[in-house]
Amino acid sequence: MPQTEADAALSALLHPRSVAVVGASDDPSRIGGRPIAAMLERGFGGRIFPVNPKRPSIQGLPAFAGVADLPETPDAAIIAVPPAAAEAALQDLAERGTRAAILFTAGFAEMGAEGAAAQARLVAIARRRGMRLLGPNSLGLLNTANGFYGTFTSSLERGYPVPGPIGIASQSGAYGMHLFSMARDLGMGLSCSITTGNEADLTVGDFIAWMAQDPNTEVIAAYSEGIRDGDRFLAALELARRNRKPVVIMKVGRSALGRAAAQSHTASLAGDDAVTDAVLGEFGVVRARTTEELLDIARLATRKIYPVGNTLGVLTVSGGAGVLVSDAADAAGLPMPPMPEAAQAALHRDLPFCAPQNPVDCTAQVLNDLTLVGRFGEALLGEGGYRSALLFFTHAGGAPSITPRLREQLRTLRSRYPDRLMVLCVLADPPQIRQFEDDGFAVFADPSRAVAAIHAMGRFGEAFAAGPVQAPTPGPLLEWPDATPSEAEAKRLLASGGIVAAPERACASAEEAAAAAASLGFPVVLKILSRDILHKSEIGGVLLGVPDAAAVRDGFELLMHRAAEAAPAARLEGVLVAKQLSGGVECILGVHRDPVFGPVALFGLGGIFVEVLRDVALRRCPFGEAEAEAMIRSIRGAPLLQGARGRPPADIPALARMLSRLSLLAHAAGPRLASIDLNPVFAMPAGEGAFAADAVIEIAKDAP
Amino acid sequence: MPQTEADAALSALLHPRSVAVVGASDDPSRIGGRPIAAMLERGFGGRIFPVNPKRPSIQGLPAFAGVADLPETPDAAIIAVPPAAAEAALQDLAERGTRAAILFTAGFAEMGAEGAAAQARLVAIARRRGMRLLGPNSLGLLNTANGFYGTFTSSLERGYPVPGPIGIASQSGAYGMHLFSMARDLGMGLSCSITTGNEADLTVGDFIAWMAQDPNTEVIAAYSEGIRDGDRFLAALELARRNRKPVVIMKVGRSALGRAAAQSHTASLAGDDAVTDAVLGEFGVVRARTTEELLDIARLATRKIYPVGNTLGVLTVSGGAGVLVSDAADAAGLPMPPMPEAAQAALHRDLPFCAPQNPVDCTAQVLNDLTLVGRFGEALLGEGGYRSALLFFTHAGGAPSITPRLREQLRTLRSRYPDRLMVLCVLADPPQIRQFEDDGFAVFADPSRAVAAIHAMGRFGEAFAAGPVQAPTPGPLLEWPDATPSEAEAKRLLASGGIVAAPERACASAEEAAAAAASLGFPVVLKILSRDILHKSEIGGVLLGVPDAAAVRDGFELLMHRAAEAAPAARLEGVLVAKQLSGGVECILGVHRDPVFGPVALFGLGGIFVEVLRDVALRRCPFGEAEAEAMIRSIRGAPLLQGARGRPPADIPALARMLSRLSLLAHAAGPRLASIDLNPVFAMPAGEGAFAADAVIEIAKDAP
Repeated sequence: MPQTEADAALSALLHPRSVAVVGASDDPSRIGGRPIAAMLERGFGGRIFPVNPKRPSIQGLPAFAGVADLPETPDAAIIAVPPAAAEAALQDLAERGTRAAILFTAGFAEMGAEGAAAQARLVAIARRRGMRLLGPNSLGLLNTANGFYGTFTSSLERGYPVPGPIGIASQSGAYGMHLFSMARDLGMGLSCSITTGNEADLTVGDFIAWMAQDPNTEVIAAYSEGIRDGDRFLAALELARRNRKPVVIMKVGRSALGRAAAQSHTASLAGDDAVTDAVLGEFGVVRARTTEELLDIARLATRKIYPVGNTLGVLTVSGGAGVLVSDAADAAGLPMPPMPEAAQAALHRDLPFCAPQNPVDCTAQVLNDLTLVGRFGEALLGEGGYRSALLFFTHAGGAPSITPRLREQLRTLRSRYPDRLMVLCVLADPPQIRQFEDDGFAVFADPSRAVAAIHAMGRFGEAFAAGPVQAPTPGPLLEWPDATPSEAEAKRLLASGGIVAAPERACASAEEAAAAAASLGFPVVLKILSRDILHKSEIGGVLLGVPDAAAVRDGFELLMHRAAEAAPAARLEGVLVAKQLSGGVECILGVHRDPVFGPVALFGLGGIFVEVLRDVALRRCPFGEAEAEAMIRSIRGAPLLQGARGRPPADIPALARMLSRLSLLAHAAGPRLASIDLNPVFAMPAGEGAFAADAVIEIAKDAP
Repeated sequence: MPQTEADAALSALLHPRSVAVVGASDDPSRIGGRPIAAMLERGFGGRIFPVNPKRPSIQGLPAFAGVADLPETPDAAIIAVPPAAAEAALQDLAERGTRAAILFTAGFAEMGAEGAAAQARLVAIARRRGMRLLGPNSLGLLNTANGFYGTFTSSLERGYPVPGPIGIASQSGAYGMHLFSMARDLGMGLSCSITTGNEADLTVGDFIAWMAQDPNTEVIAAYSEGIRDGDRFLAALELARRNRKPVVIMKVGRSALGRAAAQSHTASLAGDDAVTDAVLGEFGVVRARTTEELLDIARLATRKIYPVGNTLGVLTVSGGAGVLVSDAADAAGLPMPPMPEAAQAALHRDLPFCAPQNPVDCTAQVLNDLTLVGRFGEALLGEGGYRSALLFFTHAGGAPSITPRLREQLRTLRSRYPDRLMVLCVLADPPQIRQFEDDGFAVFADPSRAVAAIHAMGRFGEAFAAGPVQAPTPGPLLEWPDATPSEAEAKRLLASGGIVAAPERACASAEEAAAAAASLGFPVVLKILSRDILHKSEIGGVLLGVPDAAAVRDGFELLMHRAAEAAPAARLEGVLVAKQLSGGVECILGVHRDPVFGPVALFGLGGIFVEVLRDVALRRCPFGEAEAEAMIRSIRGAPLLQGARGRPPADIPALARMLSRLSLLAHAAGPRLASIDLNPVFAMPAGEGAFAADAVIEIAKDAP
C-alpha cells in the first residue's frame, strides 16, 4: 500500500523490522522499560535493541552502549532520555540512517522559547537525513498487528486490546490513551493507537492518511486541539473518504473557555472552531460531542454499513422508548418517515392494539408470541424499506426465557436484509450481548446513543457516495490593488468578477451628487468615499433615505465635514450616491482568510442575526452555486428568505450566485486578499436579483 | 410519615401487610406466577394469598378459590386475570375493604372507546369504597425495603437490585423497567420502582409525592409522557423540593414527531412541551436528555451534596481532557472561574510546566510524585474554593502501580472538604472503582457525562435554597366580558389592570379620526375597531405611518370599506387612531391557558424572533417582576433589549412590570380567559416605558 517516501517512513514507524530503545531500562515499570516489557509480552515480530551504556543486558535482551554499537541500522527508534541526550541520540540515529524516531522526551516547545529552539534543532537533524519524528513529548504508539508497543502508557498495566479494525490518532497523549483504554475496556478491536505530542514533524493528519491506507484499519478515530497543516490534513481526509474509511473526530475548543485552555495547554493554534466545523462537515468527517459518542460511532462503523439516504425505522416493545427515540431522531435530523398505509393496516390486523406508524410499537405482546418480531421486522425492513432499524427489546431481550427465541427471529431478519444497519437496544449479560453482536447486530443500552451513532453512519454514507470534493471552475484572476481600495474601487473590482452592487455613482461635488441622485431616483443613500476610511458608519459617514436634491447637496457637505473632522489624514474622494433599495432582505456575505484553511466564505442575515444570534453558515472557498444555496438554506433564519410571514420569497439563486462567485474570486486571489465584506447585500424578491449596497476589501499588509 | 387518606392507601400499596394475587399461577414464569415467585425469593415480610379456583396450593402456598374465601382482608391486591374477570375481582376486593389494587390486566383505555368505558367502571367501583388503583395495563411495582415485588417484569430473571436511595416512577411500563434494569445492572441502590400504566387513578405525580415522604427514598427518578393533573403534580414537586429530594425526569415528546408517537401510544395528553419545560424548571426539576444522563444524575444525587452557586474546578493529568471539560461546562452553563492569581503563581513555582488557571493541568508529572495531587487539590478546593471538583486521572487512576498512592492523596482531600462535590474520572477495574466510590467520590468514565451531572447538582442546590415557589400578591379581579371584546375595550380593561397602551382614541367618523390624529401627533396608526374581527391585519384592517389629516380621512373610509367587504356580519365600531411609536424594540407579550397548568405567560421579540426562531420564554402565572425580568433576559435575542449594536438599552423594568401584571390578571381571571395577546408591545428606551400597540383578549366559549 504505502507508496511515497513519507508512507515508507510511517511504515517503518508502525511496522519496524527492528527498533532501538535509547534509554532502555531493565525495570519494566520505568519509562524506558515499559515498551520493551510490552513488546516482549505481546510477541513483537521485530528485533529489539536496548541502548544503555551501563548494563550488558536489559530485560533478558543484550544491550548496547550506544547507537554506534548497534549490530544493524534499526528501522525505528524510541528515545527515552533527557532532552540534551535526546538530541545527541537523534543525531547518531540519523547518521546511521534510521527512518523514524519516537521521542518520549518532554521539555521542548511546551516549555517556552528555549525548548522551542531545541525542538527546532531536532527537526533540523531529522530533515537533513530524511528521518521522521513522532513527538517530542509523545506517549508513543502501538500497533496490535505486529505487537509493536512503542509507548510507555501505564494503561497497559490493565491489559492489552484485542486486534481489530479501529485506529486511533490523538494529539493529546493522556486523552488519546483515555480513548484507547475505554475502547479496550469495552472490548473494541483496535488496529493502532498513536499520540503525536508536540507534532514537531508528524501530525494527526499524517496518521489519518496512513490509516486511510493501512489494510488493518477500517475506521479512523482522532483527537485534535488545533490543525496545523490545513492542506495535508484535508488531503488525508480526502484519502480516507476515497477509501471509504469513516473518520470520527473529537476536535475540542468549541467554547471560548475551551480555546483559552487549549492555548494554555499547548502551543497549538486552536483556530476558528466554526471554520473547522464547516471543513470537517465538507469531507464527511463526523465530529463527536463526547468521548462515548466517539467510541459509539467508531464501534458501529466497524459494521461497514453506511446508508445513503438514511432513514430510521423503529420497532419497539415500549411505546415510551418509541417516543424517546422519535425525539432523539428529530434532534439529530435523522428522518423517521411513516410506514406505508397498507403495511400499517396489515400490522393492525395482525395485532389490533399495536401502533404501526413508526415507531412501530408491537407492545409487550410480542414477548408471548415471538414470531410477531419476525413479522413486524419483515414489514419494517421490507415494506417500510428503512435503511436503518432500531429494535428496542430492553431487558426482555436479555431475559433467559426470551433471548433464544428472539435471536432466532432476528437472525432471519439479519440474513434477509444484509445491507441494512441494524441496532438492538437490549439489556443483557455480556455473553448474550456478544451473541447478538456475532449475529450482526450492534447492541446499545441507551437508545439515544444508538440514534446518534446511526445518524453518523448516514453521514458517512452520503460522503462516500458524493465522490471527491470537486473544485468548481476557477474564478477570474482579478487585478487586486496593492492596498485596501475605496468602496467605489472595491465595487468596480467585484463587478468585474460578476458581483453586482446597487446602482450608484462616485461624485466629487455637491452638484454632481444632486444630479446623480436625480438620475438614480429618490430616496438615495450618501456615503463618504475614501480608501482610508473602512468603517464609514462609525464616523457618521453614511446618510440613509435622503429624499431630494437639496438634501443631497446638504448631505454632501455634511459628510465631507464629518470625515475631515474624524479622519484628518484621510484622502477624501467625494461621496458615493446610491439608489436606496427597499423591499429586499438584508444579508451579509463575506470571505476571510483562515490561517489554516485559506479563504472561508460566510453567509448570514443582516444585523442582529449575525451579531447577536451568530446565525451564519461558513464554507471553505471555492464552491459552486449548489453548495452556496445549501449554505443559505442552512441558517436558522432561512425562512425569512423563503417567504415567511407573508413576505415575497427572496431571490435565493441570485444570492447563491453572488456567494459562489465571491468564493471563486477569493480562492483565485491568494494570500494577499485578507477579507471581503459585502454588508448589506439586498436580496430582492424572486427574479429581481441581489445587490451589494456596500463592499469593503482588505488587502493583507504582510502578504507576498 | 404518611398522614392523609391518600398517603395511607399508597402505603398499603407499597408496604402491604398482606397481598392477594388474583389469577395466581403455580408456574413462576407466568404473569400470575412471577410476583409470587419474586416475593418468595426476596422474603417478602407480609402474607401472600394466591387466589385461584382450580388449585389447592400455588408455589407452596395455600390458595383460595375466590376473594370471598380469603381468611382476612388483604391490604393490597394484584389482579392478573382477563378484563371481565378483573372487574368482578375488583368489585369483590372493594367489598371486603382492600385499600389498593395493582391491575396488570390490559385491554382498557389503550384499546379504544369500549375499553375506556370498562376502565371508567373500574374507577367507579374503586371510588365507591375509597380504594386506590395502580393501572390498569401496569407492569406493577416493587419495593426493595420489604421485598414486595408486585410486578411481572421479566427483568427479574437477570437479578434483583440492591436496596438503596433511588426511587423510580414511570408511566411507561417497559421504559420504566428499562430504567430499573439499567440501574440494577450498574449496581445502583434502589428503593422502589413503580409503573403507572393507564393512570386511571394513581399517577406518576402521586408516587413522586409518596417518595417525597418515603424515608427510604432520597432521590426521585421519573418518566412521563404527559401530565394529567397539573395541581397534584406540582404539589408533589413542591413537596419533594421542600424535603430536599431531587427529582430528575425523562419527559418525552420534545419533538412534533415524538408528540405524535406519544399520542398514538397512549391516550395521554402530551401537552405543550415548552410549557412543561418551563414548569419543571420552576420547581428545580432537572429534565434529562437521555436515559444515561438520568441515571448519572440520580447516582450523583445520592451523594446528597447540592452546591449553591455551583462552580467547577478541574484538576487534570491531560490538557486535552481539560479543554474537553471546558467546552462541556460552557455548553451546560456551569461556570469555571479562574484560580486566584496568587494560587496560580504558587502552583507554577511547585511545577513549572503546569497550567494552573482552571482547568488546572498538573500534567502526567504528578504520576511520578503523587503528593502533587494533594498539593494541587488543596489549592483547587482551598484557594480556588470551587463548589465542585472534577479530577481527571483517566487510566492512570486505575493502574495498579498508581491507584493506592492516589487514593491516599484523594482521601485526605475528601476529608478536608466534606461539603464539596467531588467527581473522579478514572478508568479502573470494578473493585478499584468501588473503593473510590467508598472513599466518597463519584466515578465517571466520560468527562462530558460527569459535567452534565455536576451541573444538575447545582440546579438542585439552587432550588432547595430558593425556598417554596412564592405566589406574588394577587392581581386585581377584572370584570371580564362575556365574549371577546374589541381592541378598544380590551385596552380599557387591561389599563384598569395597569397595562399601558400607546396613546389612542376610538373614533366613529372620519372627521373625529382626523381631529384625534392631530391631537396625538403624526404619524398615526389606523386600525379597524370591531369585537368581531380579532386578526385585523389579515383583512388589511391596519394602516401604518399615516402622515396627515387628509390621509387619516381617506384611511378611515378605506378601512370601513375593507372590513365591510371582508367580514359583512361584523359589527363595526369605527377606527382606532393611535400614535405611531418609533425608536422602541418590538416585543410580544401574551398569556394562554394551558389545559394542564392553567395560564402561562409568553415573552418574545416581535416578528421573526417568535415566528421563525421560536425564541420565547414561558412561565406559569402568576409571577412577580423579578421573575418577569429573568424571563426577558433569558431569550437569545435579549442583547437587542440590552443595547446591542449601538441602540439605547430598552426599558426592561417597564416590560417586566407589564409582563408580571399580565400574569397576575390572567391568574385571577380563571378559566374563562382563554388568552391575551399584546402584539406588538413597544419597549421604549430606558425610563420611557413600554406600550402595548395592540391587544387581543379571547374569552373561552365553553367556560363556566
